[in-house]
Amino acid sequence: MTESVLDYMARLGQAAREASRVLARASSAQKNRALQAAAAALDAARDELVMANELDLAGGRANGLDEAMLDRLALTPARIDEMIEGLRQVAALPDPIGAIRDMRYMPSGIQVGKMRVPLGVIGIIYESRPNVTIDAASLCLKSGNATILRGGSEAIHSNKAIAECIARGLAEAGLPAAAVQVVQTTDRAAVGALISMPEFVDVIVPRGGKSLIERISRDAKVPVIKHLDGICHVYVDSAADVDKAIRVADNAKTQRFAPCNTMETLLVHEARAAAVLPPLAAIYRDKGVELRGCPATRELLGEGVLVASEEDWATEYNAPILSIRLVASLDEAIAHINRYGSGHTDSIVTENFTDARRFLTEVDSASVMVNASTRFADGFEYGLGAEIGISTDKLHARGPVGLEGLTSEKYVVFGDGHVRT
Amino acid sequence: MTESVLDYMARLGQAAREASRVLARASSAQKNRALQAAAAALDAARDELVMANELDLAGGRANGLDEAMLDRLALTPARIDEMIEGLRQVAALPDPIGAIRDMRYMPSGIQVGKMRVPLGVIGIIYESRPNVTIDAASLCLKSGNATILRGGSEAIHSNKAIAECIARGLAEAGLPAAAVQVVQTTDRAAVGALISMPEFVDVIVPRGGKSLIERISRDAKVPVIKHLDGICHVYVDSAADVDKAIRVADNAKTQRFAPCNTMETLLVHEARAAAVLPPLAAIYRDKGVELRGCPATRELLGEGVLVASEEDWATEYNAPILSIRLVASLDEAIAHINRYGSGHTDSIVTENFTDARRFLTEVDSASVMVNASTRFADGFEYGLGAEIGISTDKLHARGPVGLEGLTSEKYVVFGDGHVRT
Repeated sequence: MTESVLDYMARLGQAAREASRVLARASSAQKNRALQAAAAALDAARDELVMANELDLAGGRANGLDEAMLDRLALTPARIDEMIEGLRQVAALPDPIGAIRDMRYMPSGIQVGKMRVPLGVIGIIYESRPNVTIDAASLCLKSGNATILRGGSEAIHSNKAIAECIARGLAEAGLPAAAVQVVQTTDRAAVGALISMPEFVDVIVPRGGKSLIERISRDAKVPVIKHLDGICHVYVDSAADVDKAIRVADNAKTQRFAPCNTMETLLVHEARAAAVLPPLAAIYRDKGVELRGCPATRELLGEGVLVASEEDWATEYNAPILSIRLVASLDEAIAHINRYGSGHTDSIVTENFTDARRFLTEVDSASVMVNASTRFADGFEYGLGAEIGISTDKLHARGPVGLEGLTSEKYVVFGDGHVRT
Repeated sequence: MTESVLDYMARLGQAAREASRVLARASSAQKNRALQAAAAALDAARDELVMANELDLAGGRANGLDEAMLDRLALTPARIDEMIEGLRQVAALPDPIGAIRDMRYMPSGIQVGKMRVPLGVIGIIYESRPNVTIDAASLCLKSGNATILRGGSEAIHSNKAIAECIARGLAEAGLPAAAVQVVQTTDRAAVGALISMPEFVDVIVPRGGKSLIERISRDAKVPVIKHLDGICHVYVDSAADVDKAIRVADNAKTQRFAPCNTMETLLVHEARAAAVLPPLAAIYRDKGVELRGCPATRELLGEGVLVASEEDWATEYNAPILSIRLVASLDEAIAHINRYGSGHTDSIVTENFTDARRFLTEVDSASVMVNASTRFADGFEYGLGAEIGISTDKLHARGPVGLEGLTSEKYVVFGDGHVRT
């Protein structure tokens, strides 16, 4: 490029801002047509997608990416099917835009309500998985937002090929090409530019590792919808049903080890420890989970349980490791969660109404649960139809973020020549 | 103080965080008792309040504050009445906290809904008016948030005296003193510290001039709910009713000149200009409003209308000055507003359904109106019962911000031992 990266990004930003005006008034039918046409374009471009992906995979191997990274980068036929299916599912979701709610007469005679509107332009910054290009683009498009997508440099050929399919969909629906733009340079300065253009970009959604998200949050000049740690807890209350406790604590840890909504610390009331922990420990042992416990846990379960340090309580393992702590009361459990947790997802197992009610009120997390596995904290399981991520922020969107999290509401006022006196 | 300002602010922050846990679970009755008791304490402390205020006024005079500033600083008996009444009104508002909505069964069998919860700790940074101390403290308290209030150094004695009354109210209701803390130092480093403690402060609400708000937004390490410009428009459509147009355009400009929701630019469709502008110009002349127009406006109204420059379209006058522009179409009006406006409040005067519908959809502002004066953009007029400010942000709260804007929602999940498969 002869153009500087800053100029290039400003050009994308300007085009996105203009496209966002068109998208804001696009009909649901038009947006859905674009999504369906993009799905058809992906289906027709399977060979090109695989060829582009081969380039990325070859580059990745040459750059020494490990097997896990290469696996995330690969566009298999099954993953292309998933992208196509994802586009069709988003097309089938209800359109949130334009809904007007709570229109009421005020004492002055005006009517006041709220209308759901797009945010405008959304910047997405993500790492190797090329399917994020489709996920993010489809949700932003459906919610009437223009998008600028900045994927990892290791996936640039795949992302460009996917972007061409999206462009075909947009063209077929008569929507501007700048509605979805994939950044075409791998220059890292593009990220810095993207997060520093409040005049063109309304919000940034970073998807990736914690260090990426922390860096972007620190440097961004525009708001960031972010997901940091997922240090999730299950608390087995003194009034817990033993079978439910075992079922939930097993599933929350072992259904999958890597996700952010997997339990990292199990808190058990002393009065239930003898009934719950030995059978659970046997399950965990069979499934290869390393246990680290407080002194009371180790006294109960033996020295096969390692010593949990202060650091363990504040660690997201994303791995087959679990820390366990006995507590003397519900208060102690809530205090532990609010101190060491990350405000992501926490669950109590109890048959006691008052304990459940207190846990729901006093645990300050994006999702609070009773008698359910933390693994349910997910946009699909919550009925959002899709998910752009899980927010651990408190403002704006909190918890799983679907279409509604990519929108805002404006006030709508109707009068008949009304003036203020 | 022997303690550094940073240490002092961290101590306030820590105490606020702890108090916020107590407030989050305080009952509505307890919060209302604190508000009513604070009102009674203000009423009983009128002499102390006036004496403290005298110190501030004397200091202000010595420091050469102008009359307008001194007037804003003064705690007259009527203003003390207003503070007392304000506390009682907030006590009478419904409590937003704990409301659970949209609790629904999912295919997995879990129930998922959303519960309204406090944000946690809110920092308020404001300038001379001491009554903001009561406004902000009462709204934050009612919405279950702990507050750290940092008023202007010129009002420090008044704010401390008001803080003592609030402290009496909190004590009477058995709530922690740290639920509402007024920063006791006038050291400016306190502001820098307050906006840089994400571990203790969840959101900052600055109230004051644009330069204060811009500086805080730029430097803050925590989210800011902010109000920047209010460049509001009235657009008189080709299908406008002439009487309504004149009434709305008069009121939007002249009911008060200084507020942010006052019209700064009047857009008139060419087809209505001859009917609407001459009578309006006469009204504005009588009320001392200086007019600045585009060439077509000046052709119609004569050279008494000054030339509007490009800069005029982007200026918030907060003064008896109005810029006027003729447009050839609704499209031109919408494009003008989205380009030069500040996304605050814009109104169309029209009898045409389709024009009204397009204006509502396509004007990207926090409040969009049909046949109503922009002056209605206000928390009280919108039925919020109170207002901590008007947000020109798009994320989280947009437009007038009442109790709900100081809250968030968390997901609530109920199961019966449900696990994910």
